[in-house]
Amino acid sequence: MSVHAQTHELFNPHSRSATPSTNSIGMKNNLFPPATKIEPMKALDSRFTERSKVTPGLAVTATPVGLSPLDRAKDGSALKEAKLKEDTSSDSEEKMAMKPFPIPKRKGELEGAEVVEKRKKGRPRKDTKMLMPMTQPFPQIPVPVEKEPTRAATAAATALPAVQLKLPTPAAQKSFTYQVSAEPSVYLEVENEVSLVAGTRLSQLRCFRDGREWDSLLPSRILVASGSLEVVAVACDDRTLSVFSACGRRLLPSILLPAPVSNLHCSGHFLMVLTAAATLSVWDVQKQMALVKNESLHTILSGADISVTQSLLTQQGVPVIGLSNGKSYCFSAALETWNLIADKQDSLVQCADFRNCVTSQEALSSTGPLALMQGRAISAGRLASRLSSTPHHLQQGMTLAFLENQLAAALTLASGPEYRHWVIVYTRFLVNEGYEQRLRELCKDLLGPVHKSTGSSWEPTILGQRKRDLLHEVLPVIGQNLRFQRLFTEYQDQLELLRNK
Amino acid sequence: MSVHAQTHELFNPHSRSATPSTNSIGMKNNLFPPATKIEPMKALDSRFTERSKVTPGLAVTATPVGLSPLDRAKDGSALKEAKLKEDTSSDSEEKMAMKPFPIPKRKGELEGAEVVEKRKKGRPRKDTKMLMPMTQPFPQIPVPVEKEPTRAATAAATALPAVQLKLPTPAAQKSFTYQVSAEPSVYLEVENEVSLVAGTRLSQLRCFRDGREWDSLLPSRILVASGSLEVVAVACDDRTLSVFSACGRRLLPSILLPAPVSNLHCSGHFLMVLTAAATLSVWDVQKQMALVKNESLHTILSGADISVTQSLLTQQGVPVIGLSNGKSYCFSAALETWNLIADKQDSLVQCADFRNCVTSQEALSSTGPLALMQGRAISAGRLASRLSSTPHHLQQGMTLAFLENQLAAALTLASGPEYRHWVIVYTRFLVNEGYEQRLRELCKDLLGPVHKSTGSSWEPTILGQRKRDLLHEVLPVIGQNLRFQRLFTEYQDQLELLRNK
Amino acid sequence: MSVHAQTHELFNPHSRSATPSTNSIGMKNNLFPPATKIEPMKALDSRFTERSKVTPGLAVTATPVGLSPLDRAKDGSALKEAKLKEDTSSDSEEKMAMKPFPIPKRKGELEGAEVVEKRKKGRPRKDTKMLMPMTQPFPQIPVPVEKEPTRAATAAATALPAVQLKLPTPAAQKSFTYQVSAEPSVYLEVENEVSLVAGTRLSQLRCFRDGREWDSLLPSRILVASGSLEVVAVACDDRTLSVFSACGRRLLPSILLPAPVSNLHCSGHFLMVLTAAATLSVWDVQKQMALVKNESLHTILSGADISVTQSLLTQQGVPVIGLSNGKSYCFSAALETWNLIADKQDSLVQCADFRNCVTSQEALSSTGPLALMQGRAISAGRLASRLSSTPHHLQQGMTLAFLENQLAAALTLASGPEYRHWVIVYTRFLVNEGYEQRLRELCKDLLGPVHKSTGSSWEPTILGQRKRDLLHEVLPVIGQNLRFQRLFTEYQDQLELLRNK
Repeated sequence: MSVHAQTHELFNPHSRSATPSTNSIGMKNNLFPPATKIEPMKALDSRFTERSKVTPGLAVTATPVGLSPLDRAKDGSALKEAKLKEDTSSDSEEKMAMKPFPIPKRKGELEGAEVVEKRKKGRPRKDTKMLMPMTQPFPQIPVPVEKEPTRAATAAATALPAVQLKLPTPAAQKSFTYQVSAEPSVYLEVENEVSLVAGTRLSQLRCFRDGREWDSLLPSRILVASGSLEVVAVACDDRTLSVFSACGRRLLPSILLPAPVSNLHCSGHFLMVLTAAATLSVWDVQKQMALVKNESLHTILSGADISVTQSLLTQQGVPVIGLSNGKSYCFSAALETWNLIADKQDSLVQCADFRNCVTSQEALSSTGPLALMQGRAISAGRLASRLSSTPHHLQQGMTLAFLENQLAAALTLASGPEYRHWVIVYTRFLVNEGYEQRLRELCKDLLGPVHKSTGSSWEPTILGQRKRDLLHEVLPVIGQNLRFQRLFTEYQDQLELLRNK
Repeated sequence: MSVHAQTHELFNPHSRSATPSTNSIGMKNNLFPPATKIEPMKALDSRFTERSKVTPGLAVTATPVGLSPLDRAKDGSALKEAKLKEDTSSDSEEKMAMKPFPIPKRKGELEGAEVVEKRKKGRPRKDTKMLMPMTQPFPQIPVPVEKEPTRAATAAATALPAVQLKLPTPAAQKSFTYQVSAEPSVYLEVENEVSLVAGTRLSQLRCFRDGREWDSLLPSRILVASGSLEVVAVACDDRTLSVFSACGRRLLPSILLPAPVSNLHCSGHFLMVLTAAATLSVWDVQKQMALVKNESLHTILSGADISVTQSLLTQQGVPVIGLSNGKSYCFSAALETWNLIADKQDSLVQCADFRNCVTSQEALSSTGPLALMQGRAISAGRLASRLSSTPHHLQQGMTLAFLENQLAAALTLASGPEYRHWVIVYTRFLVNEGYEQRLRELCKDLLGPVHKSTGSSWEPTILGQRKRDLLHEVLPVIGQNLRFQRLFTEYQDQLELLRNK
Repeated sequence: MSVHAQTHELFNPHSRSATPSTNSIGMKNNLFPPATKIEPMKALDSRFTERSKVTPGLAVTATPVGLSPLDRAKDGSALKEAKLKEDTSSDSEEKMAMKPFPIPKRKGELEGAEVVEKRKKGRPRKDTKMLMPMTQPFPQIPVPVEKEPTRAATAAATALPAVQLKLPTPAAQKSFTYQVSAEPSVYLEVENEVSLVAGTRLSQLRCFRDGREWDSLLPSRILVASGSLEVVAVACDDRTLSVFSACGRRLLPSILLPAPVSNLHCSGHFLMVLTAAATLSVWDVQKQMALVKNESLHTILSGADISVTQSLLTQQGVPVIGLSNGKSYCFSAALETWNLIADKQDSLVQCADFRNCVTSQEALSSTGPLALMQGRAISAGRLASRLSSTPHHLQQGMTLAFLENQLAAALTLASGPEYRHWVIVYTRFLVNEGYEQRLRELCKDLLGPVHKSTGSSWEPTILGQRKRDLLHEVLPVIGQNLRFQRLFTEYQDQLELLRNK
């Protein structure tokens, strides 16, 4: 046992218990907050668990960098204070969106209830007590802002070789569990240092799935485990990432990560890794290829004291990062860029008024990554009421810009149902406000070329939906307004014609 | 007029003439030069305008780093002096190639005439005075040269955290216009800070196209705007890039650039961005994918005091960068490398002699990105005359190497007509100098396998041209020389055979 | 002999034995060691030569950083000492695997005999003496280790702008040769500074191939040359990389490398470059596209005093790097990650026992990149004998993990024959140890869907082999065990059924 304790000190130079000198020597004085603030990694895991039940098909995490929900609310409002005064209603709405995210108390309960109950199915564990319950919440060191020479100069003065963003790394633990799914019941059990062979401490990963069980041995301590119904992944102390099939067969050779792991998500066939160096990678495990490779979060984190509050991998393999400044970005594998998909302080968002274009039922039923990151208030178009003083033509323009943003965001997120939802809302808005030119452009794009031509680059589907099916849904909306009768019949006829072909 | 002259000094921190203080003070102190020196972005835009008429299908810019035409000529000859003496004739030839580029005087005229006239079509603008006339012309900081330890040591001594190349950023302006095309008449009008809503200043982008008009609102100041007949793009103060269809529909969610924008080009469906951190990106907007992603210009700029004088995006989406040292590079999306396509100091270029292989008519009619970057003198093969003292076998080898460079460069530039041109010139040269082996290799590659085989990797087309059509053009050149009668009839027969199939 | 010994010290700044000053003086002072210590590049080239004959289809190099075989063995055992005692048997086995690699004595002989003999075929060279015998063996500067704040602090104190890994660069030489292949006889001859034209020193590359000869002129000194039967490449002093067809036609425009070249390999249609900045690139020259682009070796080299001992490019274009710590990594172009494919200190490797699953004949005949990097001892499963004290269930788990690693590694290396080999061994092991579930998973994957479905993502082939052919080989192994008769007949029947279709 004492050997183990020493090992931990050895592998974790930042541990406070046995080597207090580490802290005093270390390069930053506040790298290691008091232990009372520390949440065990296991508890973090149960967050995933809870989350996965709320919105199946999304792997969501409030990464450990995150402020506690209380802090977050406080901070968020602080940021907003300067800009908005009538923020109270939206705050509660935002909390709705935040509800799915961790509340320490409930996590504790869950952990006591669910996760422990699962354990009974597996073999009894001798040592469920955590030996190393502390985490290493590296404070996020902001990069010097591009336009502030004084800051850059300061950074230069302190002579850091390269100012790097840091995300926190998980603590090494003797053992922990991770629930992949409740229905069917699938969970992972990690036990580190099960045996010492040839000078190396072996770790064991076990997967329990509907009564069946498989295990695998790894030559290094497992720091994080994640899984979906299709794939299981673990990241180890030696910076390796290992990926297994649902049946436990290793699918890829050990991947050496460029920096220690910070977090890991699986969703469907996709795997996402955040490293301590604030880089993001996503792989399609089935096709054995990278979708996103080592993308720096530098781009979205540069600025004053911005930190990551959420990370998410959609079922379509799109990574989404939520920040403490209220903005959310997804990284598009095709465009290879960070795209803004939600911004709670955005004036377009706050002034867009499309209440007449969404039924309350639609607003409630809208789910998906976009709704998740933006909050339901936005789906309902309710925020606009705040700024009735804005001139109508401006509000109209802002709503138009907002709705086109929504379409583009849903498209980039590969969120089919949300794209469909916003196409309908957009159409209603265009009809209500009389944007004939945009309606024509929309219909034209959805219809495509009537006569087949080889040179056409028109794609008949969008996010798995046939564009002409979408047009079929959109046309009745247009037809309701007498003003657009001609447009309606024109496209209705062509659609009919194409159907009969 | 005096405003224009000052502009060049402003954008060119290395200019020696009018602002000696710039050099002596160094980079930190003169980040924000006095407002009086500022040229409105509009004037710069009219350069683009003029350019687009001269060579349609190429988006060319003398980026603001560029030397003024006068300085450029001076500097260029200074560089050459050490190597060449009989430079006078070529200088005038280079000016031919340079003609399309901005001459301050004509810009002024254009601005007065065309752009202002366009404005009348739009709504009258109340406020054309600049409210925010400051710029941030970051001087280009050269990276320490790989092989000079002393320089590296110096850089280390000044303790810069990371020596970064910088390209200048455009000034924020209250309003400006950008002409996309003269026929049909398409132009953009930007007005920043049209309204203050919810604490944010809204900006407006308007596009006028053959009488029609659309506009869009953005929540940040627009710094640069660019467009083609297919796509419109603007980059804002908050590092976002927004992309619209020709009809004004947003095509992509806001892209967050990794650094402030330096320059923006649209050409066909392609969009190119240069950032202040000297990185280059190109997207195919239609396919919504990246072609070139955040490529550092570091590779081509490393060395002493090299700066960017030109940036260009071909109609095929190939980005080209011209440097102050006379070299031009394109970035190949497939090879993912910087490829040298023009080098005015290259000895191969200067010694290559293929005058007998080009008719004067061909020399005059040769246009395209390669001719643009190299100058017409090279197309004509006339430079060689300078070095008649070089032994024939060396000059022969240099000409061969040069012509194969031209073929490879045209291929990488995806410049079909130029490729065809240089294949003909290359063939004539091989015939004249008796390179039978190379002629065989060329014919063999153009003919391809006579019998269809499944395993063949032979592509029947090259840059959209059928290889066998090229062979059909090449063979008569070979047939003219009695020495190659056998080669001629051999391939002629096979070509006939394949035609009849 | 003494020259060779010195060479190794020269290229290995970390060697302790003969040049103690290297360590104490540090990196800036010993950049240019006395010329007497220098080994001509030619000698290095003959290593390639020898190698290429031993294992055709693999371009292997002990890069100049490498330890001498003696040093390597010493160092390796030093590393192991702490962990293993019964290492003697394996050491000799490892030497078997190392045999193909350069032994100084034989190199000298080869150089004297073969290469010089080749020269007679070419034109006589006037000046074979080296005019420029200095090298720039940049010492490899290790990156600060992630978890060692003190080291990082030290690096910061010395105020290096960016701590970069360095690989050694080849010396500039007046002339050298490189043998591409012995059968057919193909070799390259480089002569630098053949002529001074227009202020530039021209260099000449000559290729001799079965009596035929071609040459090409380049405007900068050639530092390294490499070739295969399909492609020839040279890297020059001015950081350019030039690529030619087997017949000498330039295939690509000059590529500007981001840093000086360190090493160059050609294998089939593939070209690999290592730069002094420790980045790796691989191109498919035929398809004119990048497979691996500027990948930093930082990821695999971070840690204490690790250096590159081997670099290799497989016939399939997969780059492999061997390190002084006994680990080998390949870079997967699809996954875009460094994957561990061999680790001589890995406990899984050392404890895996599958002797019963490999015939001695199979063990001897196993060749390919995986066997090359791991050593033959591993192919035979003999290492396991060392740890008979390990509990059976652990050893079983470790063997399973090891064998699945091998399959994944062979897959990532695109090494078809090795993949087939390890599938058979894996099957035998699963049969022997009674892993029915894994056997089912294997058979199911190899059989694929019996009824064609459009939505299936099953690939019928793997590394060019039909999966059902593999199943046909695997099934008899399963059938030999009475316990798996049902599994056997089940899949045998389905395979028959599919055959008759």
